[in-house]
Amino acid sequence: MFDIQEIRSQFPILNQLVNGKPLVYLDNAATSQKPNSVLEVWNQYYTELNANVHRGIHTLSQLATEEMELSRRKIQKFINAKHDFEVIFTKGTTEGLNLIAYILTQELKKDDEIIISYLEHHSNIVPWQLLCERTGAKLRVIPIDENGILQLDYLDQYLSEKTKVVSVNQVSNALGIVNPVEEIIAKTRQKSNAYIVIDGAQSAPHFKIDVQKLDCDFFVFSGHKMYAPMGTGILYGKQEVLESLPPFHGGGEMIATCSFDGTTYAGLPFKYEAGTPNVGGNIALGAAVDFIEKVGYENLQRHENALLDYAQRQLLEIEDLKIYGEKAKRVGVVSFNLEGVGISSDVGMILDKMGIAVRTGHHCTQPIMDFFNIAGTVRASFAVYNTFQEIDLLVEGVKKAQKMLR
Amino acid sequence: MFDIQEIRSQFPILNQLVNGKPLVYLDNAATSQKPNSVLEVWNQYYTELNANVHRGIHTLSQLATEEMELSRRKIQKFINAKHDFEVIFTKGTTEGLNLIAYILTQELKKDDEIIISYLEHHSNIVPWQLLCERTGAKLRVIPIDENGILQLDYLDQYLSEKTKVVSVNQVSNALGIVNPVEEIIAKTRQKSNAYIVIDGAQSAPHFKIDVQKLDCDFFVFSGHKMYAPMGTGILYGKQEVLESLPPFHGGGEMIATCSFDGTTYAGLPFKYEAGTPNVGGNIALGAAVDFIEKVGYENLQRHENALLDYAQRQLLEIEDLKIYGEKAKRVGVVSFNLEGVGISSDVGMILDKMGIAVRTGHHCTQPIMDFFNIAGTVRASFAVYNTFQEIDLLVEGVKKAQKMLR
Repeated sequence: MFDIQEIRSQFPILNQLVNGKPLVYLDNAATSQKPNSVLEVWNQYYTELNANVHRGIHTLSQLATEEMELSRRKIQKFINAKHDFEVIFTKGTTEGLNLIAYILTQELKKDDEIIISYLEHHSNIVPWQLLCERTGAKLRVIPIDENGILQLDYLDQYLSEKTKVVSVNQVSNALGIVNPVEEIIAKTRQKSNAYIVIDGAQSAPHFKIDVQKLDCDFFVFSGHKMYAPMGTGILYGKQEVLESLPPFHGGGEMIATCSFDGTTYAGLPFKYEAGTPNVGGNIALGAAVDFIEKVGYENLQRHENALLDYAQRQLLEIEDLKIYGEKAKRVGVVSFNLEGVGISSDVGMILDKMGIAVRTGHHCTQPIMDFFNIAGTVRASFAVYNTFQEIDLLVEGVKKAQKMLR
Repeated sequence: MFDIQEIRSQFPILNQLVNGKPLVYLDNAATSQKPNSVLEVWNQYYTELNANVHRGIHTLSQLATEEMELSRRKIQKFINAKHDFEVIFTKGTTEGLNLIAYILTQELKKDDEIIISYLEHHSNIVPWQLLCERTGAKLRVIPIDENGILQLDYLDQYLSEKTKVVSVNQVSNALGIVNPVEEIIAKTRQKSNAYIVIDGAQSAPHFKIDVQKLDCDFFVFSGHKMYAPMGTGILYGKQEVLESLPPFHGGGEMIATCSFDGTTYAGLPFKYEAGTPNVGGNIALGAAVDFIEKVGYENLQRHENALLDYAQRQLLEIEDLKIYGEKAKRVGVVSFNLEGVGISSDVGMILDKMGIAVRTGHHCTQPIMDFFNIAGTVRASFAVYNTFQEIDLLVEGVKKAQKMLR
């Protein structure tokens, strides 16, 4: 049974007042709130077993190592990776994507091509631009139509022997659009040997991921957008891919032998986990997976989709309100503007006075804003703890903003 | 007044039993324990104001941003940086050193030279080996004598116009030796234009850092070794140096404008902080600084030095016990072996049965072990909460281990 009040009671921050009003937190695509179970696991770690992992033979170190490896196996199951050592702990999606772009440096040469899309977050654009600078490769960008839908006939055109990387997000952070990554992967495999990278920052919080079924080479996501603390994230990479590529960071735990004449590297996952990991955070990420699985993706998805449908219907009743990607398949996000009245941040400021937290601006996706010829949008984004009453408050707030800004 | 019981009462984990014995935690050079004040600040963050920073205009986001920037200014003062934007949040020392090695790639060419020392942690060796692979530069290594003391006449020999980087730690993690970084910096400035990098992972927890007085270009350290949560760290860089070098990670918050035709980067510190930062952790790092300043470095140092002197005297009374770096100036660490009886891990295991956590093995410093022709050492490392009684237990345990292993 899905009991929204029981779920909300697990999130202490939802009782906060903001500007004298009960907090309505609709900025989940930026970061989600954290349930008590996640905070407790983190606290328990620091009050009972904090130690550095893999390094010591003392009891605390062993226990900390076991807990972190247990978390790794939870995440393996969560995304259905074949092996636990294909699951690399990172500090978040941005690090994951940059790590991939760095370790692929030797794989690309002048005039090779990297394909991304118009719907990407800056973190799935700039690392590839930097890689192009390092190698002379070129960026090709799958365009979108007026609904924000990827135009895959361009992908067909772009794909060739020159294509070395295809990197797209599974869900757009700015618009919430679900991209047909299965189709993109199938097309790519057919026409090239490109490495396939999926940015799952905005999908993993909302629906079940199966990296084996997807058959991508890399899949990256953040902990903090799916109920875990900040400073956590996952890079999944296929065993044979990770084994064949060079390391990223050098340091402790990632070497087998180190001398000034030459250094040999440790096996997976340690090869890509140099330095002291965020042990407490990584264990808490396992607890966040437990939270999601206890709610159940089916329940979570049904609730979030109902919220999205409801929000969209209510918002569209407001005159001169435009939703971006209105007709596209979406999850978790409604991104809109009040046409003719001020800018998105003005709307956001009025909502904030009512205790409603949304995000406004370009959402780190300037190319999308350029495409729609706007400076930004108002983005309301949902998590499992949001309610229909909160949507009503949002809609009421937007109407009020429209009146005030007219 | 320095009240050790009052200090200990702030660390809940110190009440743990390990193998039925009260925990004696002497593995602080691997990671320190965390006081209640740090854990509370982290919890308060997640239960009252968690939000993504710099991005939103809503109240929680503003408050989170203010708290993180307040923490940055605390750390600025803590290391006496000239500007708060010279303080970059990282996930730890290893990331800091690798970041520097990556952004210096374009500054080096074939046959340029990088000087490090024999006393470095793998994290201050391997990133430079990888940089050498990328650029064709060569590594030169300042040797040590039988006391573990750096032989600076070699530095004099090595320094030349070809020297592009000098990177040394201020305190050796394996032996606790305090290196004369002031002298190394002075010599380097005299004979080259090299970038000077100081690895402060093992110094910042033990004595006052003044980056302006040091006049280094970079100074890196970890939060988790100085009472803050894991997944936190600082890269200090001089303004003109950071401004002149390229970015490391691409992504959100580090760009000024992003388009497929070209991207321009944000100013400091954001240029080097792509992606969602570990906001809760970074704020907790500020609380760790508060903790150290409340104890006072003078008190902390006096206590830790007294512990070290006492441990050294007691241990040296044990026959056939060798302390590495015995005659060198040291802080926080005593690293030793029982000659002729088994290996360091055997000693560690016996100590662990008595609830005493030390680290054994090569401490991610294989070159030091090779120099002394050993596989590892037993390392006891101290923090402000350790006591003389704990040293007595350690000494008793080592004696017992010697008897058992003979």
